[in-house]
Amino acid sequence: MSVPAFFHDYQAKVTAELTRLVPAAGGSRVEQAMAYTALAPSKQVRAVLVLLCAELCRGSIDRAVPVAGAIELVHASSLILDDLPSMDDAPLRRGRRANHLAFGEATAILAAFGLLNLSYGVVANSYPPPIAAQMSGWIANAVGPSGLIGGQALDLEATDQAITFETLERIHRGKTGALFVAAAACGALTAGAAPDAVAALTAYAKNLGLAFQIVDDLLDVAGTTAETGKAVRADARKTTFVSFSGIDGARQLAAELCETADRALAPFGARADRLRELSAFVASRRL
Amino acid sequence: MSVPAFFHDYQAKVTAELTRLVPAAGGSRVEQAMAYTALAPSKQVRAVLVLLCAELCRGSIDRAVPVAGAIELVHASSLILDDLPSMDDAPLRRGRRANHLAFGEATAILAAFGLLNLSYGVVANSYPPPIAAQMSGWIANAVGPSGLIGGQALDLEATDQAITFETLERIHRGKTGALFVAAAACGALTAGAAPDAVAALTAYAKNLGLAFQIVDDLLDVAGTTAETGKAVRADARKTTFVSFSGIDGARQLAAELCETADRALAPFGARADRLRELSAFVASRRL
Repeated sequence: MSVPAFFHDYQAKVTAELTRLVPAAGGSRVEQAMAYTALAPSKQVRAVLVLLCAELCRGSIDRAVPVAGAIELVHASSLILDDLPSMDDAPLRRGRRANHLAFGEATAILAAFGLLNLSYGVVANSYPPPIAAQMSGWIANAVGPSGLIGGQALDLEATDQAITFETLERIHRGKTGALFVAAAACGALTAGAAPDAVAALTAYAKNLGLAFQIVDDLLDVAGTTAETGKAVRADARKTTFVSFSGIDGARQLAAELCETADRALAPFGARADRLRELSAFVASRRL
Repeated sequence: MSVPAFFHDYQAKVTAELTRLVPAAGGSRVEQAMAYTALAPSKQVRAVLVLLCAELCRGSIDRAVPVAGAIELVHASSLILDDLPSMDDAPLRRGRRANHLAFGEATAILAAFGLLNLSYGVVANSYPPPIAAQMSGWIANAVGPSGLIGGQALDLEATDQAITFETLERIHRGKTGALFVAAAACGALTAGAAPDAVAALTAYAKNLGLAFQIVDDLLDVAGTTAETGKAVRADARKTTFVSFSGIDGARQLAAELCETADRALAPFGARADRLRELSAFVASRRL
């Protein structure tokens, strides 16, 4: 199942913004390394989530584009880190050699740092201060010890270890769910959404993010490198949702999480149909 | 020459804040690694600069303490990165084993990320949004391609290479000067300072930061590990201000930069005497 048709317009806006924020040509070597991963082909699911949440809260999509780009910068930053020799030591990402193989480890680390830093700069420079400060707070939570960094740390500790299902869930709520939550919140904030709308959308995003990760585990088992753009069966040394629940069980778990996600959309009625399309895509994503 | 006597009260406030922000006990391994470097003994020159600028602009020191802590978090983050095997491969820092030797490389990288991220979170959560967003902008500039990251990248390219004096200056304006500038600006912002006061204090800080780095180069040549808390003669493969100008020339250059820095303080009259004490300390710092 390919991305829903409506993705393409949103992706085009995000790609244009990322190209503006991280120009590929003319920069220093670190800036080239930043662009290499940030501008590599990607579904930009997190950015699309930002834009959909902005639109649903009756905001302007164009106004949400900078923070959609910022969220993708954070994500690109985390991909560079995950692939480092001291972490997953992964050779391929987004169909390209991993950043550290293309630019060397030192430059890759600086590029990852630069992308995270740039995302905060974009937020500070693109929004009125009251909104910018709230966005910074959401991003800081998504990246910190209960988000990406905490999830990645738990993940590293869990390699070659037996872990519980609860730990596995904590890893992926940190590594994937937290940034989905920040994406939804930031999108809603650009539209001046009320706190209950933000709460509903972050509840949706939290479950969507976990479902997304479970399906990633499935693709690692079932896919080819040409299809996923990264090395497959790379998770063999890790406990995954598939190793816990089997292929059918993991597929069902993802579907249930997407149903839970969708229930949070009830207050929005039919206006949230694109978010429902997004969760249907996430639940049934195949190669 | 030890730090000016007035440092101690300021340092005590900053240490208390850092201990609150990055508790050493009870956290995950990444949080312990963050605390390991952030709470290691340090003169906290950047944080003291924040507090002095706040005070000079008739602000409250206590109100400036969180961003003083945030600036030190950014600095600690950059120290962890600088010492990594792929960068300077340094064994010692602040009198302790380098972070990656104590915690492993993956955890050290995550800790560095976590510290940078936390600094943005602190700013977002500690100040009214209009001030927080401006602070984020200053920090993003200080860390980005024309700041720490750009300086470090140029520094890596320059190892084992002949470079011009202009390149050397650019490296250190990025690696050291930029965060001094952000420190001064953020301190002034906590006091609601007018733009011309911010401009004067950042002009001061820019030259002070470069002088600070030149004296660091001198200490690398003249000091012992027990005195500097890090490996000495580590810069042998790099062009430094000392290799360009000799020991006496570098000492004089630092003194001249501090005089230039002090001239920017003229509008404040005698009220800026503590900043003058700070620059006198930086210029004449010995072991």
